[in-house]
Amino acid sequence: MAEPNFPVLKPGATIGILGGGQLGRMLALAAARLGLHSHVYCPDAESPAFDVVRRITQADYGDKAALEKFAASVDVITYEFENVPADTAAFLSARKPVLPNPKVLATTQDRLVEKQFINALGIATAPFAEVNTADDLAKAAEKLGRPSILKTRRFGYDGKGQTKISADTDPAAALREVGGEPSILEGFVPFEREISVIAARGHDGRIVCFDVTENEHGDHILRVSKVPAAVTLQVTAEAIRIAGKIATALDYVGVLAVELFVVRDGAGHRVLVNEIAPRVHNSGHWTLDGATVSQFEQHIRAIAGWALAEPVRHGSRIEMFNLIGAEIEDFARWLTVPGATVHLYGKAGWRHGRKMGHVTRVFD
Amino acid sequence: MAEPNFPVLKPGATIGILGGGQLGRMLALAAARLGLHSHVYCPDAESPAFDVVRRITQADYGDKAALEKFAASVDVITYEFENVPADTAAFLSARKPVLPNPKVLATTQDRLVEKQFINALGIATAPFAEVNTADDLAKAAEKLGRPSILKTRRFGYDGKGQTKISADTDPAAALREVGGEPSILEGFVPFEREISVIAARGHDGRIVCFDVTENEHGDHILRVSKVPAAVTLQVTAEAIRIAGKIATALDYVGVLAVELFVVRDGAGHRVLVNEIAPRVHNSGHWTLDGATVSQFEQHIRAIAGWALAEPVRHGSRIEMFNLIGAEIEDFARWLTVPGATVHLYGKAGWRHGRKMGHVTRVFD
Repeated sequence: MAEPNFPVLKPGATIGILGGGQLGRMLALAAARLGLHSHVYCPDAESPAFDVVRRITQADYGDKAALEKFAASVDVITYEFENVPADTAAFLSARKPVLPNPKVLATTQDRLVEKQFINALGIATAPFAEVNTADDLAKAAEKLGRPSILKTRRFGYDGKGQTKISADTDPAAALREVGGEPSILEGFVPFEREISVIAARGHDGRIVCFDVTENEHGDHILRVSKVPAAVTLQVTAEAIRIAGKIATALDYVGVLAVELFVVRDGAGHRVLVNEIAPRVHNSGHWTLDGATVSQFEQHIRAIAGWALAEPVRHGSRIEMFNLIGAEIEDFARWLTVPGATVHLYGKAGWRHGRKMGHVTRVFD
Repeated sequence: MAEPNFPVLKPGATIGILGGGQLGRMLALAAARLGLHSHVYCPDAESPAFDVVRRITQADYGDKAALEKFAASVDVITYEFENVPADTAAFLSARKPVLPNPKVLATTQDRLVEKQFINALGIATAPFAEVNTADDLAKAAEKLGRPSILKTRRFGYDGKGQTKISADTDPAAALREVGGEPSILEGFVPFEREISVIAARGHDGRIVCFDVTENEHGDHILRVSKVPAAVTLQVTAEAIRIAGKIATALDYVGVLAVELFVVRDGAGHRVLVNEIAPRVHNSGHWTLDGATVSQFEQHIRAIAGWALAEPVRHGSRIEMFNLIGAEIEDFARWLTVPGATVHLYGKAGWRHGRKMGHVTRVFD
């Protein structure tokens, strides 16, 4: 059920954004297009999002005085990343509406809790087991098989905090490799492809999804997203149903991404949830140029209490790929490709694995 | 010939923008998407463009100390309006590249000089005559007929600084009405429709035009732009040829708009230039949502020394209309219309005739 007490913003209102990376930047740009101001809060002085807003706070997420001032200056607060500390979210939500609801973070910040939540909805995930000790890991690997993947329950992204458990991996060494943190072991999923659903849910509980996207990763980082995904109508419908069910169960307001594995199952396919990202998502960047509304605008509309848009896709086929690390140096070549749009995030310098920008190609 | 000495900017460079209205705002948003910073200079504390950049200067255009600092902080300077004072432009161009070249302003700031420049290129305009006195006006009205339109040579926009000369208009009173300024009388043009060409010209002299746009005005303010314009292929080709000829003759770098009248001429049509706007233009706003590259990005690419894009239009038909004055209050309704995109400029309050935002509709 949607909560009735969220404010409906007026043009000229201010959105507080926790996190100053490229997602915060693109959220702020979308807010600006709608006549809304943004105030970005981030500890990092070099935050890309600082460059496109008038009000910034550079402070730690635990700085209560800074958070107090930030909350006083905005009408609603959102976040660009799922690892907002629980204390920060609680402190802010006592002062201003925080959307999506910080309760969502408690679920999605912990891989174990997230998977249990998903399974409790009757939705399949990769098989998993809780791992706190080397002994747990040895038993889990026996049950789930090898290869399998050990992941810390918290604070993992882009392949950080995870390691592969092969036939000859020593459990104690593997656990040390992920810092000895509380973890889970995930069984290997022989997926045919990876897809994601970018879903928006409004104050009123209405859910609007973008076209299902097919994703390719390299070194655990998203490289390419393609629309439409090469999946059956049944898979599409199931993915959309799952995203809607999760958004509703979380009483979600805003945009969320659900990453899924598509696995062959006899003559058909099964769909398993890989993970939930309670935020705008890299695999939705194509919507900036490939649809009549972007995921960023859709998120802003949702948290502003405004009507969600009904996205209409441009072109028959769209491809988005990230410019990672040194690939940024290719930007000038992409500027010359007809139908390609280039987005650069304004980051000071590139380093290996850093997302520097992306390119969208719309094909007729 | 394009000037070879303009710098080619690197991502992270800073663009200085003179003028802080919605055009400056949308230029800054386009620059941000390309990883470029913007520094907006405007005397008005409430400038919409201030809201989307990190560096602003609120100072008069004659403030040499402020201009000095501004120039020192940027890599290239551009402007969102044609009435940049000549002294300001000269002061800045002694310090940093100003694009388009300030010489362009000398031509386009004066209706008489502009029309003489256009005619000298062999391109037709409405008939006109110089008017400095009531006697000049009486003679000009006799020659060009009534009704005709008296316009100040300088600083007119959106119908300001102009008055209609009807059969019973007293020349002295009419001249007083436009402030007794040096003026021109323009003969009435029985046009079938008004169109515009948004053209970009790069450092290298390459010219790329957007689809010819058809425009409807009300109270001298643009209300609606439609693409494609309902004109013949001959008219399209002639309009594009004219825009290119003007851009080349001005040795222009950036985006310029050429407004034209389409007049029936026997079985065919003639095209007359109405005016040149040496900047991005309201009739090009549809490119934000209706093409793979916007006029704003195209301008930024040009002044950055980057490759111009080859725009590809979305949909079969596009309509852009302004939200003027109280029409802003309709914004929430437009948010619900499928395929409509809403842009609000973040202006503090609406007043009669003020451009508050626009809506683009892309039709399949």
